[in-house]
Amino acid sequence: METVAIVGVGLIGASFGLALRKAGFSGEILGVSSRSATQAAREVGAISRAASLDEAAAQADLLYLSQPVDRILTTISDLAPLLRPGTLVTDAGSTKVSVTRRAAEFLSPGAFLGGHPMAGKETSGAAAADANLFQDRLYLLTPSGKEGEHAAEFRQWLRRIGAIVREIDAEEHDRTVAFTSHLPQLLSTVLAATLQAQDNQNLQTIHGPGLLDVTRLALSPADLWSSILSENRQHVILALDAYIERLIQARAAVQSGEIQSLFAAGKMFASDLRNKSC
Amino acid sequence: METVAIVGVGLIGASFGLALRKAGFSGEILGVSSRSATQAAREVGAISRAASLDEAAAQADLLYLSQPVDRILTTISDLAPLLRPGTLVTDAGSTKVSVTRRAAEFLSPGAFLGGHPMAGKETSGAAAADANLFQDRLYLLTPSGKEGEHAAEFRQWLRRIGAIVREIDAEEHDRTVAFTSHLPQLLSTVLAATLQAQDNQNLQTIHGPGLLDVTRLALSPADLWSSILSENRQHVILALDAYIERLIQARAAVQSGEIQSLFAAGKMFASDLRNKSC
Repeated sequence: METVAIVGVGLIGASFGLALRKAGFSGEILGVSSRSATQAAREVGAISRAASLDEAAAQADLLYLSQPVDRILTTISDLAPLLRPGTLVTDAGSTKVSVTRRAAEFLSPGAFLGGHPMAGKETSGAAAADANLFQDRLYLLTPSGKEGEHAAEFRQWLRRIGAIVREIDAEEHDRTVAFTSHLPQLLSTVLAATLQAQDNQNLQTIHGPGLLDVTRLALSPADLWSSILSENRQHVILALDAYIERLIQARAAVQSGEIQSLFAAGKMFASDLRNKSC
Repeated sequence: METVAIVGVGLIGASFGLALRKAGFSGEILGVSSRSATQAAREVGAISRAASLDEAAAQADLLYLSQPVDRILTTISDLAPLLRPGTLVTDAGSTKVSVTRRAAEFLSPGAFLGGHPMAGKETSGAAAADANLFQDRLYLLTPSGKEGEHAAEFRQWLRRIGAIVREIDAEEHDRTVAFTSHLPQLLSTVLAATLQAQDNQNLQTIHGPGLLDVTRLALSPADLWSSILSENRQHVILALDAYIERLIQARAAVQSGEIQSLFAAGKMFASDLRNKSC
């Protein structure tokens, strides 16, 4: 794998470039994105130079698509007529069913390996990129069967950048992250929006550290989440409904004063989560 | 102020003892609690020795009530016949209306100064105590008017332990923390309980760092929260209803794909919170 092209050099894409460099990758890293984004990525050392998608498809052994999910879908279609045999396309999209379907439809078998690094920050853009972003974080792959030489090499690089690689079915992925990522994002945003709507200045100063924890995700960029929630709408609605049902039960428990079993269940999950997290 | 008695030497009470010592308090610090709790508090150096409530009332210039709110109410009633003139009683309870009402009913004017340190951890007990717990944290007081010599001295010690002292009306306090503390606690617990109920092992391993943030509060002890939610039931239900209404709007926004204004409102509050927090 001599040349890598990163399509979309925001936080994840630029961090992948920095992580590759830190792990010893000495080939060229092309960046495909807007002029301002590639300039920022070049300034932090995440890419060697900017390139068009055509150039990237003609030169790279690995195309790393780290755009919002809706744009990844478009890029896959756009890439189809440009790809050389043997080039590997992978993505870092937050949903996997629609992406792997699009790849199966447009790309030849073995040309695509879906991925999702379970890493991130509430900040965005190449300026926030971090060579250690993937260190000790889960990196999910949704293999479709046949894999070529570059796939094996890509998996090696994931391990070299410190990621914990695990395989998962695309449908199971989307169902799971609806609960563990998309639901927490919505709850955090809805809490912050609820407090914003109260028009009470005290709410911003009279609080403990817990409010900062629970509202951190509300800093996330809306455009990114717009496409994630659209692509995973069905699972997100199911997760929201499960939560709303339990929240209404919790309201009744507050009314009756019987909150023990609710808190016991919550504490059990939160404790297990910390014991089993990687 | 020569002798302080801390009634309830859990995380907050034992941290107050440690913080006083660190700030140079050289008088005796009595601890009123169960045998095991006072032993743990003595081991970490938070108290000089264990005492009964009677002894504490007879000897201390300041009685610091750091129990769950329902127990603070009982202690105030129990203290009434024991207190000497000039002794100051203060509390660290998470709700203020019921506590200040009880004090107004049972104690003489000026004998009580309500308080609420906006500090804490998800762990409990004297073993988790921290001399810096109050450092740079808001410490709310709900003065009722008349204050004696020991109240001025207590306020000085609060500043010496690094707390940012601010006064607030008890009713306004309870209304505010229903939104900024009690609501986030419930949302975190309900999220963890919802995930627990899914019976899916993947939920504990397939997630990003955001899930750890949002579920941290779910580790909090149920017995503490049982009394907080009971004492502040009316405000908590109003906060829950405001949240549920907005969550149902958010569900519709996910259905229609129009999440921009929701995310914009959330991001605005979350950003302002970080700029204005102390």
